[in-house]
Amino acid sequence: MRVYADNAATTRMRDSALKAYVETAQKFYGNPSSLYTVGQEAKSLLEDCRAEVAAVLGAQPKEITFTSGGSEADNQAILSAAHWGKLKGKTKIISSAIEHHAVLHTLNKLKKEGFEIVLLPVGSDGIVRLADLERELDDKVCLVSVMFANNEIGTLQPVEEIGKLCRERKVLFHTDAVQAVGHTAVDVGKIGCDYLALSAHKFGGPKGVGALYVRQGAPLYPLIEGGAQERGKRAGTENLPAVRAMAVALREAADTLPETERKVSALRDRLIEGLEKIPHCALNGDREKRLAGNVSFCFEGIEGESLLLLLDDRGISASSGSACTSGSLDPSHVLLAIGRVHDVAHGSLRLTLSADNTDEEIDYIIEQVPAVVQYLRNMSPVWRDLQEGKRKYIL
Amino acid sequence: MRVYADNAATTRMRDSALKAYVETAQKFYGNPSSLYTVGQEAKSLLEDCRAEVAAVLGAQPKEITFTSGGSEADNQAILSAAHWGKLKGKTKIISSAIEHHAVLHTLNKLKKEGFEIVLLPVGSDGIVRLADLERELDDKVCLVSVMFANNEIGTLQPVEEIGKLCRERKVLFHTDAVQAVGHTAVDVGKIGCDYLALSAHKFGGPKGVGALYVRQGAPLYPLIEGGAQERGKRAGTENLPAVRAMAVALREAADTLPETERKVSALRDRLIEGLEKIPHCALNGDREKRLAGNVSFCFEGIEGESLLLLLDDRGISASSGSACTSGSLDPSHVLLAIGRVHDVAHGSLRLTLSADNTDEEIDYIIEQVPAVVQYLRNMSPVWRDLQEGKRKYIL
Repeated sequence: MRVYADNAATTRMRDSALKAYVETAQKFYGNPSSLYTVGQEAKSLLEDCRAEVAAVLGAQPKEITFTSGGSEADNQAILSAAHWGKLKGKTKIISSAIEHHAVLHTLNKLKKEGFEIVLLPVGSDGIVRLADLERELDDKVCLVSVMFANNEIGTLQPVEEIGKLCRERKVLFHTDAVQAVGHTAVDVGKIGCDYLALSAHKFGGPKGVGALYVRQGAPLYPLIEGGAQERGKRAGTENLPAVRAMAVALREAADTLPETERKVSALRDRLIEGLEKIPHCALNGDREKRLAGNVSFCFEGIEGESLLLLLDDRGISASSGSACTSGSLDPSHVLLAIGRVHDVAHGSLRLTLSADNTDEEIDYIIEQVPAVVQYLRNMSPVWRDLQEGKRKYIL
Repeated sequence: MRVYADNAATTRMRDSALKAYVETAQKFYGNPSSLYTVGQEAKSLLEDCRAEVAAVLGAQPKEITFTSGGSEADNQAILSAAHWGKLKGKTKIISSAIEHHAVLHTLNKLKKEGFEIVLLPVGSDGIVRLADLERELDDKVCLVSVMFANNEIGTLQPVEEIGKLCRERKVLFHTDAVQAVGHTAVDVGKIGCDYLALSAHKFGGPKGVGALYVRQGAPLYPLIEGGAQERGKRAGTENLPAVRAMAVALREAADTLPETERKVSALRDRLIEGLEKIPHCALNGDREKRLAGNVSFCFEGIEGESLLLLLDDRGISASSGSACTSGSLDPSHVLLAIGRVHDVAHGSLRLTLSADNTDEEIDYIIEQVPAVVQYLRNMSPVWRDLQEGKRKYIL
C-alpha cells in the first residue's frame, strides 16, 4: 500500500486546479499588462481570480497581492512593516519561537540591521500565551508576527485575540497562514490582521504561487522591483495560469471545508488514538487546538530519520517536521520550544492528512508505525539503556 | 485574421512544455526537500532540470538557481553584488540607460542607500559604447549590469566585450538575458558574466519561473529568506512542474535555434521592409545587431496607444514598448535614450515575432499598419501642422 501522509509539506494538485492551469495557459496566454484584447482578457481573468481569493478570505480584491508563494509573502509583509517601523522610530518586532523559517530568517536579517526581535515562548501545548505578548507590547513595537497554525505540530494560535491586542495598541499584525488557508476557516476581518500569507500548493493548488493579504492602508513595499504589476508592489509578469489554478483550488477547498474538516479530523483522531498506544511516546502540541490533519509524535529511544526511511520502505510518506529544513542535523526549533529535549526531539514523526486519505490507509499506518518503532528500538543503544535502567525515561 | 505579434511581452506556452507541466504535477508532486521516495524522485527530477538548463547555457548545474522569473533573478543578482561591494568598500555600479525596470528600479533603491549609479548612454543605434564603459571602470566599481538584448528595440549589446573588460578589472558582471535566452545563442562562458537572468515565459515556457546563473565563486545572497532550498539561496518549495516545463521549453528552443532564427529573422526583415515604406517613420535600434524577432518603429504625427487599439481591432496584438510599463503616460526611457524626442517616442510600435508567425500574417500586418497610420494621421492636428509646414518633420 502507498500512503501519502505529508500534506503539510505539499499536496497533490487538485484535478480542477490542474485543468484550470491548462485551460488558462492555452486560452489566456496574453500578458495582463498589454493593451490589446488578448492581454485585457488575461487582465480581466486575473482580477476575477483576485476577487475570488479575496472573497474566500473576507477581504477586498485590492487587498490581495499575488506572490510566488508563502515564503515571498512572509518576507514582503515583515520587511514592509519593518521599513515603515524604521521610518516611525519603532524598531521592535514581536514574533514566536515556533514560526516558519520564512519568518524567523527574515527577522534574523532585521536583527542584524538593528531591530530588536522578541520571540515569544510557547507552552508545552505549542501555543503562544497572550500575557507574554501583552508584556512585550510597548511603544517601540512596529509589528507582531504570529502564525495562524504551526507547520510541524499543527497547533492553532490565538490569532483573533492577538489581532485585538494589536489593534488596541495600533501595532501591525502579520500572520503566516500558509498551513491554515484551505484547511480551516480563515477570515481576515475576524482575525483583524494587517497582513496574511498563504501558499497555493498547501491546499491542492499549484506550486510557485501564493498571495499576501494587506489590509487597506497598511504599508507595503516591493520586495521584487521592476514593472508596475500588482499596483507597483510586485514586479514580474503575472503568473495567470497558476493564479487561476490557486483561485479554483481555494474556492473548492472553501466550499467543502466543513465536511473536509470533519472527515480529516476523524481520520486524525483515529490515528492519534492508534499511535498513542505505543509505549513512551507523546503527542506534540495541544490535543484539541490543532489542524484537522496534523498528527505529530515524539518516540523515545529512536531516531526520526531512520523511522521515516523504514516507513517509506513500507510505502508511507511522512516527515519528521518541516520539509524546508530536512537534511539539517539540528533538532526542530518547534519541538525544542515545546520543551522536548534534544534526544526526544530527534525521534519525531509528523503525519499530515488530507481528504484523499482513507480509513484503510489509517489502519495501515497504525499497523506499520508501532512495528517500525519497535524494530528501531530493538537496535537502539539508547533504548537498551532505558530498558536496563541506565537512563531515565522522559516520555 | 488574428495575429499575435507581441512575443517579447510573453509567448504562448509550447505544447511540449505544458505537457511536461501536467505530467510533473501529476507524477512528481512530492516536495523535493522530503526524504521519502516521492520527495526524492521529485528532487532527482529537479536536478535533471538544473543540469538541462545549465547545459544549454554552457554552465555547471550548481551555477543555476531557480527563481520565480526574470525580475526576481535581476533583483537578486544586483542586490547580491551590491551587498558584496559594500563589504569591500566598492559602491559604484555601472549599468545602461536602456535596461529593463527590474534592473533600473533595483539600482534606484541602491542609489537611495548611497550607491553611485552610472547609467551608460547608448548611441542612436541603441547600443552601449565600450569606450564609455571603460572610462567609468574605476576602483570603486563592484558591478556592471548591461542587458544582453533590449526588450523594446531588440538591440544586442556587446556583452562579450563587456565581460572581457569586467574580468580584466575584476568587476562583477551581470547580464539581463531575459529577451535573449531561447532566441539567440547564449553561452555564459563566452560572455564571461558572473550573473545571467532568464525568464521561461519568454521562450514558450510557463510564467512564474526563471533562473539566475551565478558563476561559481560569485557572491549570492538570498532575496527570499526561509527554507534551505536552492542551497540556501532561494527559499520556498521548489516549483518543479514549472521548472521542468521551463527545461523542456529551453531544450526545444536550443535544439531548433538556428532554423528558428533563420525563419524569424526572414519574417522580421520582410516586415521591416514593408513598414519602412510608410513616410516619416524610422526603425528603432540598429538594423543588424538586433533580435531575430524584433521590429520597432516610430511614426511621426501619431499616438502609439491609438495605433495599438486600432490594430487590435483588426486582430493584431502589438505593443508600444515594454508590457511592464504600459498604462504609463511617460514616453519609453529606451526611445528617449536613442534620441527620439517626446512626441516621436509616443508614436512607437513594437512587433515581436516568433516561429509561430506566418508569411500570411506578415502580409496582413504590412497591409494594416500603413492604413491605420494614415487613418490616424488624417485625424491628427500635429500631422496637419507638419503637412502645412507649421512644424518641421523630425523623421
